Amino acid sequence: MSRRRQIYEGKAKILYEGPEPGTLIQYFKDDATAFNAEKKGTINGKGVINNRISEHIFTRLSHIGVPTHFIRRLNMREQLIRQVEIVPIEVVVRNVAAGSICKRLGLEEGQPLPHTLIEYYYKDDALGDPLISEEHIACFNWAGHEEMQDIAAMAIRINDFMCGMFAAIDIRLVDFKLEFGRLWDGDFSRIILADEISPDGCRLWDLNTNEKLDKDRFRRDLGGESEAYQEVARRLGLLQNEDGGPGEVLDMDHARSRLRPQKK
Amino acid sequence: MSRRRQIYEGKAKILYEGPEPGTLIQYFKDDATAFNAEKKGTINGKGVINNRISEHIFTRLSHIGVPTHFIRRLNMREQLIRQVEIVPIEVVVRNVAAGSICKRLGLEEGQPLPHTLIEYYYKDDALGDPLISEEHIACFNWAGHEEMQDIAAMAIRINDFMCGMFAAIDIRLVDFKLEFGRLWDGDFSRIILADEISPDGCRLWDLNTNEKLDKDRFRRDLGGESEAYQEVARRLGLLQNEDGGPGEVLDMDHARSRLRPQKK
Repeated sequence: MSRRRQIYEGKAKILYEGPEPGTLIQYFKDDATAFNAEKKGTINGKGVINNRISEHIFTRLSHIGVPTHFIRRLNMREQLIRQVEIVPIEVVVRNVAAGSICKRLGLEEGQPLPHTLIEYYYKDDALGDPLISEEHIACFNWAGHEEMQDIAAMAIRINDFMCGMFAAIDIRLVDFKLEFGRLWDGDFSRIILADEISPDGCRLWDLNTNEKLDKDRFRRDLGGESEAYQEVARRLGLLQNEDGGPGEVLDMDHARSRLRPQKK
Repeated sequence: MSRRRQIYEGKAKILYEGPEPGTLIQYFKDDATAFNAEKKGTINGKGVINNRISEHIFTRLSHIGVPTHFIRRLNMREQLIRQVEIVPIEVVVRNVAAGSICKRLGLEEGQPLPHTLIEYYYKDDALGDPLISEEHIACFNWAGHEEMQDIAAMAIRINDFMCGMFAAIDIRLVDFKLEFGRLWDGDFSRIILADEISPDGCRLWDLNTNEKLDKDRFRRDLGGESEAYQEVARRLGLLQNEDGGPGEVLDMDHARSRLRPQKK
């Protein structure tokens, strides 16, 4: 495995050449960054948990007809994915005001938004991922009009599905980030969901206590990052027992985890 | 006139109660501000010039069917306007990259944009007029969907008209800001152009020398602000002679100015 070609290294993941053309291996690191990489650190076991949570969510999204890059999980930290051309847009779906939007628009954190809000950010670390609108996307041709229609429609469906999934385990889905990619087939491409969905890119609050179960624990120095990520995995039924740390106790048997009743 | 009621005082204009219901008097000050009022100053005679330029442009826009709040100019610094409910959105139309967008998206100043770009900013001084998208506008109901369609369509028409008008006098229309308002008629309202169009809210570059003929002279301490504003008025045929300062020589005879050939 050590001789395989590295395609890309990001802040939380590494992409390697896959076993056959059109595939890649996505490796999940424990590295965590925040505020456009001004803050750096490690969340112990995060990569293992995120690999498992993202597998879980992408698999279930495919069951409702949302196309994704996910093929299968390979091991604790790696999954096999389809190679796509990443659309240079971060899609943020917000149900409740939190994070950057509060300061920008003068909202109070925790205030439910009047409607679900989709925001687009231009994926460019050097520029700090600036907020953009569909007009910017059209002007600079970062994505086509039909692609944006597909992206917006998928983002809404994913939000509906995930709101339901997390509500069932007493978690409020405050907001989350999505990335999409173009899957090429000859001269044609279609948009599919790419990247990952995990507590790194979601704000997840306990429905009763408002406790943060996501990367804000790291961003805001709240402590207990690893435990929060594990708690999400545990509630999703992805840990064999609630006391186990990541690594040893991750449930590798996909079928079994679906049969076991969820613990609240 | 001293006893009339002041409705609103902004950074460059004051609004007074008008002579009959549904009208206001818009008074143009010489005060100039920049960078969300962090920089303050005065541009001598600016109010007189802007009153005249805005009258000129709004009148011509009404000739192509763009509805505006402008009724008639009253005197050197005042115009009679229709009272509207201002839509809390600043509409910026950009043809060439300049100003805030350059830093935000990593563009070079002076670079023509691939397409004309419309941007929306939330009108809120305390928040620094943040960039927003149509999704934010819909989410917080700052304007309705049909209102935004009207606004975007008018902004494009205004841009086309003004590009032509300024090109005819060797000026490149780099970008400009518009504000719109709701004109109420019973329970119904329609969107009309409000505020002003002047070198305060436009970037106007000499087509041959790229010399700035707008408020960037003030923002960037380039000097010659008054002269630049006068030059725009002169090229538009609004000054009786090119040496005259504002005040004494402004052409009050609207009909005559249209008969006189424009000087280049």
